[in-house]
Amino acid sequence: MALLDPDRLFPADERTRAVARALYETVRSLPVVSPHGHTDPRWFAENEAFPDPARLFVTPDHYIFRMLVSQGIPLADLGVPSADGTAVETDGRAIWRRFASHYHLFRGTPTRLWLDHSFQTLFDIDRRLSAETADFYYDRISERLAQEAYRPRALFERFDLEVIATTESALDNLAHHRTIRVSGWGGRVVTTYRPDAVVDPDFDGFADNLVRFGEITGCDTTRFTGYLDAHRVRRAFFREHGATATDHGHPTALTADLSRSEAEALYSRVRSGEASAADGEQFRAQMLTEMARLSLEDGMVMQIHAGSRRNHSDAVFAGFGRDKGFDIPQPTNYVAALKPLLDAVGLEPGLAIILFTLDETVYSRELAPLAGAYPCLKLGPPWWFFDSPEGMKRFREQVIETAGFYNTVGFNDDTRAFCSIPARHDVARRADCAYLAELVTTGRLAEDEAFEVAYDLAYRLAKEAYRL
Amino acid sequence: MALLDPDRLFPADERTRAVARALYETVRSLPVVSPHGHTDPRWFAENEAFPDPARLFVTPDHYIFRMLVSQGIPLADLGVPSADGTAVETDGRAIWRRFASHYHLFRGTPTRLWLDHSFQTLFDIDRRLSAETADFYYDRISERLAQEAYRPRALFERFDLEVIATTESALDNLAHHRTIRVSGWGGRVVTTYRPDAVVDPDFDGFADNLVRFGEITGCDTTRFTGYLDAHRVRRAFFREHGATATDHGHPTALTADLSRSEAEALYSRVRSGEASAADGEQFRAQMLTEMARLSLEDGMVMQIHAGSRRNHSDAVFAGFGRDKGFDIPQPTNYVAALKPLLDAVGLEPGLAIILFTLDETVYSRELAPLAGAYPCLKLGPPWWFFDSPEGMKRFREQVIETAGFYNTVGFNDDTRAFCSIPARHDVARRADCAYLAELVTTGRLAEDEAFEVAYDLAYRLAKEAYRL
Amino acid sequence: MALLDPDRLFPADERTRAVARALYETVRSLPVVSPHGHTDPRWFAENEAFPDPARLFVTPDHYIFRMLVSQGIPLADLGVPSADGTAVETDGRAIWRRFASHYHLFRGTPTRLWLDHSFQTLFDIDRRLSAETADFYYDRISERLAQEAYRPRALFERFDLEVIATTESALDNLAHHRTIRVSGWGGRVVTTYRPDAVVDPDFDGFADNLVRFGEITGCDTTRFTGYLDAHRVRRAFFREHGATATDHGHPTALTADLSRSEAEALYSRVRSGEASAADGEQFRAQMLTEMARLSLEDGMVMQIHAGSRRNHSDAVFAGFGRDKGFDIPQPTNYVAALKPLLDAVGLEPGLAIILFTLDETVYSRELAPLAGAYPCLKLGPPWWFFDSPEGMKRFREQVIETAGFYNTVGFNDDTRAFCSIPARHDVARRADCAYLAELVTTGRLAEDEAFEVAYDLAYRLAKEAYRL
Repeated sequence: MALLDPDRLFPADERTRAVARALYETVRSLPVVSPHGHTDPRWFAENEAFPDPARLFVTPDHYIFRMLVSQGIPLADLGVPSADGTAVETDGRAIWRRFASHYHLFRGTPTRLWLDHSFQTLFDIDRRLSAETADFYYDRISERLAQEAYRPRALFERFDLEVIATTESALDNLAHHRTIRVSGWGGRVVTTYRPDAVVDPDFDGFADNLVRFGEITGCDTTRFTGYLDAHRVRRAFFREHGATATDHGHPTALTADLSRSEAEALYSRVRSGEASAADGEQFRAQMLTEMARLSLEDGMVMQIHAGSRRNHSDAVFAGFGRDKGFDIPQPTNYVAALKPLLDAVGLEPGLAIILFTLDETVYSRELAPLAGAYPCLKLGPPWWFFDSPEGMKRFREQVIETAGFYNTVGFNDDTRAFCSIPARHDVARRADCAYLAELVTTGRLAEDEAFEVAYDLAYRLAKEAYRL
Repeated sequence: MALLDPDRLFPADERTRAVARALYETVRSLPVVSPHGHTDPRWFAENEAFPDPARLFVTPDHYIFRMLVSQGIPLADLGVPSADGTAVETDGRAIWRRFASHYHLFRGTPTRLWLDHSFQTLFDIDRRLSAETADFYYDRISERLAQEAYRPRALFERFDLEVIATTESALDNLAHHRTIRVSGWGGRVVTTYRPDAVVDPDFDGFADNLVRFGEITGCDTTRFTGYLDAHRVRRAFFREHGATATDHGHPTALTADLSRSEAEALYSRVRSGEASAADGEQFRAQMLTEMARLSLEDGMVMQIHAGSRRNHSDAVFAGFGRDKGFDIPQPTNYVAALKPLLDAVGLEPGLAIILFTLDETVYSRELAPLAGAYPCLKLGPPWWFFDSPEGMKRFREQVIETAGFYNTVGFNDDTRAFCSIPARHDVARRADCAYLAELVTTGRLAEDEAFEVAYDLAYRLAKEAYRL
Repeated sequence: MALLDPDRLFPADERTRAVARALYETVRSLPVVSPHGHTDPRWFAENEAFPDPARLFVTPDHYIFRMLVSQGIPLADLGVPSADGTAVETDGRAIWRRFASHYHLFRGTPTRLWLDHSFQTLFDIDRRLSAETADFYYDRISERLAQEAYRPRALFERFDLEVIATTESALDNLAHHRTIRVSGWGGRVVTTYRPDAVVDPDFDGFADNLVRFGEITGCDTTRFTGYLDAHRVRRAFFREHGATATDHGHPTALTADLSRSEAEALYSRVRSGEASAADGEQFRAQMLTEMARLSLEDGMVMQIHAGSRRNHSDAVFAGFGRDKGFDIPQPTNYVAALKPLLDAVGLEPGLAIILFTLDETVYSRELAPLAGAYPCLKLGPPWWFFDSPEGMKRFREQVIETAGFYNTVGFNDDTRAFCSIPARHDVARRADCAYLAELVTTGRLAEDEAFEVAYDLAYRLAKEAYRL
């Protein structure tokens, strides 16, 4: 029994399915461009074997452990490292068996599609994961992970990754990226400038971070001008390590365009630690506009990932820290929020801002009309919870009629789960071909155009939008 | 001519339809579990014949009379009892004829599906309702209602109801439930604890209700501690009458977790009748958290039905009172609103809270991510306006990819229209099988798993989630 | 090669497609009723030939030029007239070539469907627009536009327009409409009363407009009573020119029902130019209720088009003025906003209010429940960005189950692009037949009823709802 249906995600209707298949045949083997994600550059720098199956698939993947938690399994029993010293499960096989015996929870989820894709294509497994097959899986995957062909660089090549972007803090020394560069290995791994630690006054250790930001750049970060210069220095440093883009993960999409003196006064308040919550929001807002201005100087593409209420559970955050599956989207407005930035620089040639949302209600109401007018705006693919077949369908159906295909940027996998990368791109390619096939059979797109768009969505738009 | 298409609600595509049919065959005849609704326990206690067709189908059903009102027919002409003494139509046949001559208004609505299902399967009618057939219908239904086989208990058995939950006020004496218990009849009718009358300071007669709450429990409801004890006493009383769940119908989902002294002071204000609107909202919010704590004590499942702006038309409310089809949903936030409750008890083993919404925008943005993380949260089925084929489709498509099937609780009919119960469960079973079939033909779910999930959705999940 | 697929927009499934085709055959040739739009009455009054292809298709159509702008082409290069004296392209052929070479941007958009429909059916073109075919197109269209058969009145007849409504300011002298009336030409062109210039305190020249409003009506617009009388006079004048409806394009749907003295004081403030932003919003709100009262007097149908944040880009507005594709929807609430008006007159027999939205989240949550209860409310078709195949599908799927078909009003093209009118109505008829066919094949509507509904949606409902 195969885990994967070769026609998965194609429309049920035979005629439409045939068109989807034909489109997919032309894009299935294109190289993978991964312009935004959270893989660990250490993997490619050190090229060590991955540890056991549980630590490859379960422990680091919030898609997986939060679902198990939602059905009453404690995070500690899944080996997720605690922040407060609580003892957690250390036996990989025990973790794996817990996961396996709850595999039915993932029915109907994209996680299930990604996992089965890895199990079948990477580990040649043809029986379903369950309590009964848990040990068979654990042994098979362990055995493979010990092989040279399953080390990070070998997988990178096997996955046909043309380029992958990781994401590092503005304070990161990018040592792994340098190691990769000088190693002689041909894989293209680039970084992305993520300045939250020095842009978000609510970030842990913000004041100390500003001090360090000054030290590593030689700029006077006690003053706003010097602080902006420090960004210039670090952005250049990141560009030397391949970066073509910046990334901004704010709770809202608010932007501001204060006068220089107001901005300086605001900076002075947030630096002193005496800022109010409103000051913090205002400073993040102002910095989006400043970052857009810096992008005009240096050509880096801006990404705005807005709308997540991080660490919703106080207890989970206290016990286990960030990124534990308790980040919940909230309603997010873009039309009023982005106006200050857009009035400041929204018509400037060369500026490129890619917008992401966790609030699907803005696709048709706000994002498509904005991207369908402002030359600087493009729409990122469906993000996080919406990186799924139905999420992609809703995105296409609500965005394309207003913004067209060419104000979108192809696919991002945005993952820290390395093995899921081929699966995620495959899902996106299939979902896009399914959508295009539907347009063709309903007379909304000519077939020759559909082939061209399929290529653009699978490959060209991501490279162009991210200037890779 | 049959009123019902035997393949109704199955996907049009032949291959997918065949899968849906096969799935449906295995669940169509499962007993009906109705864990939440508003049927009248008096029916089963007294087992009197239902009155005429108009008073069975039209007069008590806000789905029906609001649609007729929306096209200019006055409520009074439909025999809906007035609150202010206005004379209303009393001739059942005249009401029925008005309804029949406007039956085309229901085209494309679930009400039409439910009615046709009752007409065909219960009254063996094979011609469409219209002005021409109005009298035929009236006579046929009247004749049947006079028969023993159409009394409430007989219908209960005919509908294969394994259990039905009604909903009673915290102040109700549950006499009908006691009558049913001691009657020797085997039907399982349980109550549900609905404390709005003593929890919502905006409820008619709130202050008097608190006094009575004290009297019937022997608790000192002049103090918050005694008030909470009164809830304990009544919850136990309801559990003696079969209740396994509570139900909370708040205008918003706001929760609070005040200190004991703050809560006592707030209670004192709302009890005195001098509370502000904000106090009222805050008290309802606090009581959701208190109710969750009581559920931890006694194991009752909490239901939160949030988001209806009740009695939108002042004139309709003045003339005809509550539940007259003028309850309009409003935007409802859950992610911020539920945080206080979830921080207080959200990770406690054994707690079960079922969330319902009238704001579909929260399915993918808030509810699925919340239920896909917190162990206490599960999602109720699409409610009220969304208890419909398209509503169910949107629910599945927006919820399952993030929360999975096992953070949902199967179907609720939530109805006061007794005859619609088999129809509603049938619609849900068909819609679920259609959805599952689509997953199967698009390679997202294996066929053997689909059969298991179909059974869970039609039967098992409702029993387990409601601890029935 | 044909540009148009004869089966376009019909469902892919063969059986469903056959039903859609059969339904469409009965409505495709019905006369076009266009009850709301923005064509220029001058065209029909003067009956001059349209200028060149660029000035027919590109320069006046914000759907087209905003998409080109979004990909970096300046408005000036497209010949869009500037407001600030900036020089703009004047060479029609140069504009056309720019448009043609970017025609791929419109893939998957309704604009593409409308354009191809015009190109094929009106200009007998069978090859796709592109850089290569730009001159062929330009020559062919130019040649045709010079012919008598392509003048406005001839096209009106060719399009089989039974009636078209234009939209004029309350201050307009309706001279073109008079010219049409006395010309002896049989085409029915009616106006619509759009009083923004004298109702919206934020409108350019509002104070002067009120003075002029007094002059042309002979009413004392320095007092609120006289101001309302001026509306009465102008509404009567518009009715003499065929108007059956009014139109209100407010940024929100807010209504108010102030006491007479409050309203007079508010009017006094807004007239003096000393009103706050809140006063402006309040006055627009009050005037919606006043307009509803005037509709009760004179029988005119009210349209409310709410929710557009106009002129989002300050720079585009300064350089090019209104209606330049930078109007972005914003979240819009109807349930609280409409309550004052509905409490005032919402149950009055004879009142008709048609609601439109740019916020699709309100379809199922607010608009369908409101229209499914209040007798005065009906729902306009999907508007602007949602006048599209997917937009229509979402509207039907989210509205009909609650409001039914008969609380909707058929189709509006709402366009200033004359040539797109047949295409837009054709898209709507096809989309509706596709939806109805889906209901038929899934057993939710009997086939004979579907034919009746198809006729109603294509023709009857628009005439009845607009009292045409």
